[in-house]
Amino acid sequence: MKEQEFLKELKEIDLLQQAMGILGWDNQTGMPEKASDYRAEVDSYLYGLYFDKKVGEPIQEAISYFGKHPDELSEVGKAAYQLVKEEYELQKDVPNELAMAASAATSKAHTAWLKARKEKDFSLFKDALSENIRLTKELIPYWKKNELTNYDVLLNQYEPNMTVEILDNVFSQVRDGIMDIRRQLAEKGTAPDTSILSRKMTEAQQRKFISKVIADLGYDFSRGRLDNTVHPFATGINHNDVRLTTRWSETDFSMGLFGVIHEAGHGMYEQNIDEKYEGTPVHEGASMGIHESQSLFNEIIIGSNRNFWAKQYPFFQECAEGTFDDVSFDTFYDSLKHSKASLIRIEADSLTYVIHIIIRYEIEKMIFNETVSIDELPKIWNDKYEEYLGIRPENDLEGILQDVHWSGSSFGYFPSYALGYMYAAQLLHAMEKEINVDEVLASDDYSPIRKWLTENIHQYGASKKPNELILDATDELLNPQYLLDYLRKIYFSVYKISETQDFA
Amino acid sequence: MKEQEFLKELKEIDLLQQAMGILGWDNQTGMPEKASDYRAEVDSYLYGLYFDKKVGEPIQEAISYFGKHPDELSEVGKAAYQLVKEEYELQKDVPNELAMAASAATSKAHTAWLKARKEKDFSLFKDALSENIRLTKELIPYWKKNELTNYDVLLNQYEPNMTVEILDNVFSQVRDGIMDIRRQLAEKGTAPDTSILSRKMTEAQQRKFISKVIADLGYDFSRGRLDNTVHPFATGINHNDVRLTTRWSETDFSMGLFGVIHEAGHGMYEQNIDEKYEGTPVHEGASMGIHESQSLFNEIIIGSNRNFWAKQYPFFQECAEGTFDDVSFDTFYDSLKHSKASLIRIEADSLTYVIHIIIRYEIEKMIFNETVSIDELPKIWNDKYEEYLGIRPENDLEGILQDVHWSGSSFGYFPSYALGYMYAAQLLHAMEKEINVDEVLASDDYSPIRKWLTENIHQYGASKKPNELILDATDELLNPQYLLDYLRKIYFSVYKISETQDFA
Repeated sequence: MKEQEFLKELKEIDLLQQAMGILGWDNQTGMPEKASDYRAEVDSYLYGLYFDKKVGEPIQEAISYFGKHPDELSEVGKAAYQLVKEEYELQKDVPNELAMAASAATSKAHTAWLKARKEKDFSLFKDALSENIRLTKELIPYWKKNELTNYDVLLNQYEPNMTVEILDNVFSQVRDGIMDIRRQLAEKGTAPDTSILSRKMTEAQQRKFISKVIADLGYDFSRGRLDNTVHPFATGINHNDVRLTTRWSETDFSMGLFGVIHEAGHGMYEQNIDEKYEGTPVHEGASMGIHESQSLFNEIIIGSNRNFWAKQYPFFQECAEGTFDDVSFDTFYDSLKHSKASLIRIEADSLTYVIHIIIRYEIEKMIFNETVSIDELPKIWNDKYEEYLGIRPENDLEGILQDVHWSGSSFGYFPSYALGYMYAAQLLHAMEKEINVDEVLASDDYSPIRKWLTENIHQYGASKKPNELILDATDELLNPQYLLDYLRKIYFSVYKISETQDFA
Repeated sequence: MKEQEFLKELKEIDLLQQAMGILGWDNQTGMPEKASDYRAEVDSYLYGLYFDKKVGEPIQEAISYFGKHPDELSEVGKAAYQLVKEEYELQKDVPNELAMAASAATSKAHTAWLKARKEKDFSLFKDALSENIRLTKELIPYWKKNELTNYDVLLNQYEPNMTVEILDNVFSQVRDGIMDIRRQLAEKGTAPDTSILSRKMTEAQQRKFISKVIADLGYDFSRGRLDNTVHPFATGINHNDVRLTTRWSETDFSMGLFGVIHEAGHGMYEQNIDEKYEGTPVHEGASMGIHESQSLFNEIIIGSNRNFWAKQYPFFQECAEGTFDDVSFDTFYDSLKHSKASLIRIEADSLTYVIHIIIRYEIEKMIFNETVSIDELPKIWNDKYEEYLGIRPENDLEGILQDVHWSGSSFGYFPSYALGYMYAAQLLHAMEKEINVDEVLASDDYSPIRKWLTENIHQYGASKKPNELILDATDELLNPQYLLDYLRKIYFSVYKISETQDFA
């Protein structure tokens, strides 16, 4: 077999993925409501073609041939081969019936989850969840390579080389640190006035503002677009087609605004992967966690920066056509960084968000590495919210039923969200050794930031593992202290607590 | 072979077509500008899969098997079989090299056409056009079944059972009739004031108005949508997903308005084909000409109706937010039906449009059924415009280079546009025997019109041939007199010529 044939096969798989990508995007951005049944047939047909190729003979042959002749591969071929082999090996021992049972179980669980949400009653979801867990536990031995614990196996599917040992350490540090910051804000801080957040801005006004902001940040509209949707996402169809979506509220401009800045971070990552990887699985993000680090760099690093907002505020006022003319910059900025514990993860602010993830992590770990009865889960959930955030869900919808992930057996996925926060802060720390970020964000030209991220993260796509990317970019392994320092700095400033007072 | 297998194969072909349909729609409605090269690869890959299936073994087997066992097919199966067989037989004898040469020639011709347009110089397109003609003439014997002349073969590809004999008759009648109406308007008529047509209406105002209008007419937005594009079109992805596109001008509201009404006519046709045909080639329009009859029924029958506009005008004024408050209904209506000869087909009004088609028809017939030197074509073209419309192109861009069709070897396609006009007027005449169309259009409920069209045309999809549809719906074959009568009525009314005066 020649490398060319291998790459041609990958290219065809990629072309099918691109077609599915556009259909998926279309489905979420305005497909006529009654078209979903017919669309499902198209999706499933294309997925069948895609799946058959992915596990087809040419790919199997390539894995076996290039395992013996690695030197016949170029750099791109090697990187692609590595990913193809990893994915293949993950699935190759899984009995077909087990894979099908697991997939069928998630369909059932999704229905059960929707029903349980409607009734706000976890007991209606419990059996389906148990079945998902049981089947996942059956799958783990087939997936396992050299991970230490069951939950490590799950973590690795989303964040290669991540372990429970690492996460236990960083999460306890972050949890305690955030709880400490919250305590100090409550004791010594002055909460900002947030009344201006509900002033009316039309969708067109918001769109005008945020489109310029993300173009300034480096999102390339000639290779992308921004559409409306219900559950916002970004999707990389190919190197020159990376699309963002958002939702808007005319009485809560911050939702669309930070939503688009966030998705643009994902989008810039995909737009800046080295084009030489296009048509292979290397032209993707390195992991969920690294992807999230890029969206969160935009949202919580740049989006929390006072200089950035000071520079953008006049244009914001202009777009709002008078609505904010009486609002001082300080009032505007401080309102954006108000913090208030919430029961719902996706409504959380940037200080408390990670706590939601840690709670889910602690529970998932109990499920897969310890023994816990499914019946106890809602109580465990609620107790943790009370302990860490001081609030308690009144029903399961506000609690354990809030997220879709468990219905799809996506166990081990959640920590990625928190890793993104920590990576983003750690990247900022490293970037600041070379670039005066505050100065750049006060200027007309943000390109030094985008360039740094492209050089250190984006360009590599999935050719490096997350831990390797972070080590190479920051000269150290994951270190959660940067996130804590950063959150403390931002929130103490907004809540008018001086650092000296803090250490008093 | 079982019917089920045949229908499954057709379904898979259809699923690939649906995917290509969405990709094509996306390409025209906002795909990022730099994505076109990557997209072309996806398109060509999917087209390859689609083409292989269309001429693949299962289809060949079905054609042979059900040719011998037609009774094993259901009604849907029979209708599908007929179309599949016709298409297969059209192509089966064409030598592969000839098909490829013809396809390659159109690519070259397209480039040459673009260049010639830029220089406004037909001589730069001449050789490529000659080559397209030469190859088409080579193809004709392979396509020919029992048509009388070469040009009949081409006509039949777009309008089954249409002949030069029929068209020569109807086109000369229509041409003379329209020239007579134009003469009378010029001699005795009073041209309406059209200054209000350039009053500013924003895209949002126009969209609001026209969306309600087409929904009133029966276009179902829950199974469709309306997007912006450069060259407007409608596309039926599947029974529940039929999309319209348009372009807008803020200083020429009539462009978007009649454009959307026109595309909605195509859309309603596709939405109302009997769902039982979905997933087979029967779930399509019967022909280009019939399709155009539906868009033109909306645009020139309903869109020229005084009662219709009288009813809609208050809402139009409301959408325009004051801009038309000082404009009387008569001034508004009359301005819409102003007629002025134009050199460019797509800018023509509904009185002179058909003349553009007839000119192209006469020239295409000279090329394929008579002898004519390519070098003479621009002069022939210009002479005909002068003779029929009293205007003469100053250069080839205003003349023979204006349309893309010849660069793609789409000879025989143009007459469909004119057939649509004649069919539309003939359908109106038949409909009026059962429905008081003026009364319906003065009311709140247009559904009797949509229902009549669904019952007589839409529901059948491609299960009937165009001449059969027209005969069954109107009790006679194509009769151009209805179009002439209709145009005379509308334009005499707007130009204040009384019919008695006309016959004096």
